[in-house]
Amino acid sequence: MCLDVFRTYGAHLVGVEMDDDGMKIDALEQALVANPNTKFIYTIPSFQNPTGRTMPFDRRQKMIEIAKKYDVIILEDDPYGAIRYAGDDVAPIKSIDDDERVIYMSTFSKILAPGLRIGWIVAEKKLVKKFTLMKQSADVHSDNLTQHIIAKFMGEYNIDDHIAKIKAVYREREGVMMDAIETYFPKGVHYSHPEGGLFIWVEVPGDINTQDLFNTCIKNDVAFVPGEPFYADKVIPGTFRLNYSNMTDEKIVTGIQRLGKAIEQTIASQKVDQGA
Amino acid sequence: MCLDVFRTYGAHLVGVEMDDDGMKIDALEQALVANPNTKFIYTIPSFQNPTGRTMPFDRRQKMIEIAKKYDVIILEDDPYGAIRYAGDDVAPIKSIDDDERVIYMSTFSKILAPGLRIGWIVAEKKLVKKFTLMKQSADVHSDNLTQHIIAKFMGEYNIDDHIAKIKAVYREREGVMMDAIETYFPKGVHYSHPEGGLFIWVEVPGDINTQDLFNTCIKNDVAFVPGEPFYADKVIPGTFRLNYSNMTDEKIVTGIQRLGKAIEQTIASQKVDQGA
Repeated sequence: MCLDVFRTYGAHLVGVEMDDDGMKIDALEQALVANPNTKFIYTIPSFQNPTGRTMPFDRRQKMIEIAKKYDVIILEDDPYGAIRYAGDDVAPIKSIDDDERVIYMSTFSKILAPGLRIGWIVAEKKLVKKFTLMKQSADVHSDNLTQHIIAKFMGEYNIDDHIAKIKAVYREREGVMMDAIETYFPKGVHYSHPEGGLFIWVEVPGDINTQDLFNTCIKNDVAFVPGEPFYADKVIPGTFRLNYSNMTDEKIVTGIQRLGKAIEQTIASQKVDQGA
Repeated sequence: MCLDVFRTYGAHLVGVEMDDDGMKIDALEQALVANPNTKFIYTIPSFQNPTGRTMPFDRRQKMIEIAKKYDVIILEDDPYGAIRYAGDDVAPIKSIDDDERVIYMSTFSKILAPGLRIGWIVAEKKLVKKFTLMKQSADVHSDNLTQHIIAKFMGEYNIDDHIAKIKAVYREREGVMMDAIETYFPKGVHYSHPEGGLFIWVEVPGDINTQDLFNTCIKNDVAFVPGEPFYADKVIPGTFRLNYSNMTDEKIVTGIQRLGKAIEQTIASQKVDQGA
């Protein structure tokens, strides 16, 4: 979910530091102590957007404990959890929710078709009633035809078979992109190794200017999604998101090759700038 | 548009009194003087929801003048304007907007199919860019399939032919409902005589309790849309909205007959209460 959704309703967002296992629980607790009016924790625990990181089960358990301790709701956004093509599934936080504290959300846009804007929520009945009211005033209802199409699909086909097909494609493309990254990216660039989802998260070391890098890329007919807008508050420069789901193997290799060169060029030109 | 849309974003709503020709311009000016931080005037000038009233052209011109004088935007919501089956068309406020002050909105939900949630906006380019950004963060985009379906329909068929069919149906049903109201409603009940759109607005005189009336109706297997939620601030009791677009002639007559009786009963019982 785009963080601007919360901002447009006037929410004050507080970012919580992550490591390779997702949101850090001690940082989360510090944020809750510092912000006692917090309404909810927003998290994408599986193949997080943009980092592709997954929170292990024991950390999910700790998050539930923290949420109980500070009496806040957890908004578990899980658009990518079903798209795991390596490693073992991790159960959703909602699966260990014993006091109706977790609002679980997912969508057909990542497992069936991105153009069909239908998702779902699993939550306490009282909250679902509230969501219904809020949705009525926001857009009356979701497109009926699309709802019928999806219901028909779910009734007549096996969605898991379809997800299995998608996974095979993504596994292959992720492998191609990862090999290309290892070949063409300069040493020292950090990147995630996702076991599912759609994204690889790249961190270029040093104080690299992401906009300069982006401009260099555009000149070389390649692009990435800059990391800046994904940060709730503090921004780490030189970060960006790659998506391997929608391009041919050939284009992936060409793109990563160009991106690797652009990173090298940008690092080199910034060194010159700093030397001057 | 549901007024709650504005409320959920923290807007402070100020109601402007209407007469049978829609928003009263002197009341509008008073409201703008009393609320100098007003951002925009929201209006449904044609077959307004819930009253079915239409603002004549000269009043639309005056609204533009007032909007200029107080430098506010006009949000012209026009979902029903195309569905006129009697009288003469009145040009949209947007048609006389000579300084990009009017944001015009309409929807396919009232002229093609209510389940397809696609509308459109006519506005200054700068504003459209803003809307695009806001829509991206709200729902990424409208359903693609639905957009393709509507584009195909518009390319291969004549939407005006389709609207002509709808109008013929609505004209007939409005006539049936109006005849039934004249036959079965007690004297003194005020109702609008729409020349298009979907709604008839009913005002029951005296301090009638709308909830009591509604409960009596439900017991007699008929319902209406209570007027209360449509008021931005001050509420006039005993008001409700009828919709003639979606029922058979027979059901319309039966419904109005039941409603007439329920109004009589409620008026009678309130007189007893007041006498006791």
